[in-house]
Amino acid sequence: MRTRPLKVALLGCGVVGSEVARIMTTHADDLAARIGAPVELAGVAVRRPDKVREGIDPALITTDATALVKRGDLDVVVEVIGGIEPARTLITTAFEHGASVVSANKALLAQDGAALHAAAEEHGKDLYYEAAVAGAIPLIRPLRESLAGDKVNRVLGIVNGTTNFILDKMDSTGAGYQEALDEATALGYAEADPTADVEGFDAAAKAAILAGIAFHTRVRLDDVHREGMTEVTAADFASAKEMGCTIKLLAICERAEDGASVTARVHPAMIPLSHPLASVRGAYNAVFVESDASGRLMFYGPGAGGSPTASAVLGDLVAVARNRINGTTGPGESAYAALPVSPMGEVVTRYHISLDVADKPGVLAQVATVFAEHGVSIDTVRQQGKDGEASLVVVTHRASDAALGGTVEALRKLDTVRGVASIMRVEGE
Amino acid sequence: MRTRPLKVALLGCGVVGSEVARIMTTHADDLAARIGAPVELAGVAVRRPDKVREGIDPALITTDATALVKRGDLDVVVEVIGGIEPARTLITTAFEHGASVVSANKALLAQDGAALHAAAEEHGKDLYYEAAVAGAIPLIRPLRESLAGDKVNRVLGIVNGTTNFILDKMDSTGAGYQEALDEATALGYAEADPTADVEGFDAAAKAAILAGIAFHTRVRLDDVHREGMTEVTAADFASAKEMGCTIKLLAICERAEDGASVTARVHPAMIPLSHPLASVRGAYNAVFVESDASGRLMFYGPGAGGSPTASAVLGDLVAVARNRINGTTGPGESAYAALPVSPMGEVVTRYHISLDVADKPGVLAQVATVFAEHGVSIDTVRQQGKDGEASLVVVTHRASDAALGGTVEALRKLDTVRGVASIMRVEGE
Ligand SMILES: NC(=O)c1ccc[n+]([C@@H]2O[C@H](COP(=O)([O-])OP(=O)(O)OC[C@H]3O[C@@H](n4cnc5c(N)ncnc54)[C@H](OP(=O)(O)O)[C@@H]3O)[C@@H](O)[C@H]2O)c1
Ligand SMILES: NC(=O)c1ccc[n+]([C@@H]2O[C@H](COP(=O)([O-])OP(=O)(O)OC[C@H]3O[C@@H](n4cnc5c(N)ncnc54)[C@H](OP(=O)(O)O)[C@@H]3O)[C@@H](O)[C@H]2O)c1
Repeated sequence: MRTRPLKVALLGCGVVGSEVARIMTTHADDLAARIGAPVELAGVAVRRPDKVREGIDPALITTDATALVKRGDLDVVVEVIGGIEPARTLITTAFEHGASVVSANKALLAQDGAALHAAAEEHGKDLYYEAAVAGAIPLIRPLRESLAGDKVNRVLGIVNGTTNFILDKMDSTGAGYQEALDEATALGYAEADPTADVEGFDAAAKAAILAGIAFHTRVRLDDVHREGMTEVTAADFASAKEMGCTIKLLAICERAEDGASVTARVHPAMIPLSHPLASVRGAYNAVFVESDASGRLMFYGPGAGGSPTASAVLGDLVAVARNRINGTTGPGESAYAALPVSPMGEVVTRYHISLDVADKPGVLAQVATVFAEHGVSIDTVRQQGKDGEASLVVVTHRASDAALGGTVEALRKLDTVRGVASIMRVEGE
Repeated sequence: MRTRPLKVALLGCGVVGSEVARIMTTHADDLAARIGAPVELAGVAVRRPDKVREGIDPALITTDATALVKRGDLDVVVEVIGGIEPARTLITTAFEHGASVVSANKALLAQDGAALHAAAEEHGKDLYYEAAVAGAIPLIRPLRESLAGDKVNRVLGIVNGTTNFILDKMDSTGAGYQEALDEATALGYAEADPTADVEGFDAAAKAAILAGIAFHTRVRLDDVHREGMTEVTAADFASAKEMGCTIKLLAICERAEDGASVTARVHPAMIPLSHPLASVRGAYNAVFVESDASGRLMFYGPGAGGSPTASAVLGDLVAVARNRINGTTGPGESAYAALPVSPMGEVVTRYHISLDVADKPGVLAQVATVFAEHGVSIDTVRQQGKDGEASLVVVTHRASDAALGGTVEALRKLDTVRGVASIMRVEGE
């Protein structure tokens, strides 16, 4: 073993960073044995220097993150501040001053991954970020390395624990969205401002990262179609149950059937109870990966939390440290395929549509005509009527999002259609 | 991209090898882009040279595997012959002549992993074998790399598809073992001689490999306690159902509670239906990994088959090829922890025991006394009697295998105990 320690700076010492620091201390001997050199915590950048941080030498604490990454003697910088700035500038400055970087920052990677990878490559350094997607679950490394000899066609995942907790609660108790959200907040599963989670921003960032790696193509956050789950109702769950389904907020990255383009999207969807993702409970995450040769793989585990996320950060830290010692770097960005990212309109899937209609003869024929005119083929229709009001539940065969959108627009114009109560995609069949 | 191709020799071109060759041809451009250099199939060693092998240039075929690995210009040797010899000698010869090795050979790795790793290290070459455990499922790489900063405490897995198919069939149809085996054979899920699968040899080899990597300790095949699943009966499934369980053949690698030793074992066990492993159907595999920081992770997918296994082989091939180009090697054997491997007697778990007893007063008291004398605490007892015969089903609290063994031996000596109908461990709670 080499005796000169590898110097690691920690940017951020919050939920994740404090766990990284703790494990670096308590597991120092194991880390040294696995890396082949001891690891030294060389500095910890925070915002509030006076906060008590258990187990961390106060002399290491600094509020000057920039000066820390410019020291020039660092081997690895671990960025667990989050957000775009100052994280972005700190990471590029770290590369410029000779360090490799491990980050858990999905927002930044989804927005500026290409530029950060370019900076890493320019300086011959590593940029690893397993923790940015689905916390502790090994996903980036398996996609990038284990499946490097395969062709990934689809990634279908539950990548946000907060929303899965809420949807699971609604499913199991019949609660409405607000009630389930309140419980998630009370139990610490949802933040005070849950927007990033419930509106799907967090999942969309992860979808962009996953799609990029899976398809060897740059996929940016803007390329990801995003719908939140705040409008999912108890009635939607009842409909799902009738179909033998449940509802999950899914991140879906797909290669088009002709292989010539890809799509990435986040939205709530019905999935059959028999699908392994249907039984992912509480705040757990799980990701399905479908590939040509390997078939269907699933990766399951805690998608967030300080110590699971720290486990992923430390796995990367060991890999980056080994690369340093070997004088090499790991696989960088792989975007050679450069496939076009198609808009949502071209996504093909099935739909479950609930319509409130007038309870009179001929309505079904009218509705069916509209579907036919837009080239959307109907799989099943269920009519329920009472007191002059009726509902019509239509489940379609596979159709493009554009065709479905045109259908719904035309349906809304029918006199006999009082309203479109819900539209939900059906996935995972 | 570098233009001089990497030369790959394929040893074996059967179920797995033929798929490796096929994907190397059909995905040549993708592999080249991902590796950074084209890959050339330089030779294919087989036993029967005259067999038609679609898509493979007959000029590449040879029966002289030894001459092939001695060529001296090979970058990577892919060993998919299987068995101990000639695979072992061919692999070491490959190292001696400058090649790195990718293998799918669990039997060989479990028996001689340490020597092969030493040979790889001596010659500064890579030895990768993701395909040796659970086919396409990325498991070795996540354990070795993603969890390199964590402390794994338990690996609990369904790692043999044949036996999972049989047990799943017994569970869902009420069939007996032989009937389910016959169906597995007819459908091609079981080999003509199913011994390696049903007696747990295959799973034991995988358990040895997994335990070694998870605990950074050498674990050999001989260290793995092994019980097959040929004696699991329809009655056992009925008992399992009454407990809210099903029965799976599990490979279990555990760190002792005091952290000072490890165990590895393969045997059928009851697991609660609520455990994610309980819903692993058909020939699928799944492995649970429990670690200090990351908590519970699960990896699921096809555990065998030509193309899934080839996917794993090719992922390794890409990694090894990249290492070659970078003039480095990946992480080698990590056995620094060198923990003692404890015998089965020290394994602590719960047990479900069915006894045939005389239907007369005092039997339960007698039986309970025997358990107490051996320090095995009883959780529940259920008595069923008819016609002077009765059965007693005892579920214990956690106890060592040695204590349970002593208990059963003493029970057999009781006049009132006619026989021990079954003993099954209860895991995953
Ligand atoms: N939490 C999770 O479960 C989880 C899971 C996966 C990924 N992540 C990602 O991990 C990253 C960190 O998340 P977290 O939950 O640990 O966040 P957090 O608890 O809010 O911690 C942020 C840390 O960054 C420090 N910080 C903020 N601005 C700074 C600045 N300008 N200069 C120096 N330090 C600054 C804070 O200092 P003070 O301590 O002084 O406030 C705090 O220590 C984010 O990218 C997040 O998306 C988190
Ligand atoms: N099949 C699976 O699903 C699976 C899954 C995971 C791991 N594995 C592992 O992968 C390895 C290969 O399995 P497989 O199912 O592909 O086996 P297989 O179908 O029996 O193929 C074995 C190949 O090795 C060749 N061979 C045998 N002896 C040889 C010798 N002395 N010299 C040169 N070639 C020789 C055979 O030649 P001929 O073609 O001329 O007979 C055949 O091509 C084994 O280690 C197995 O445990 C297999």
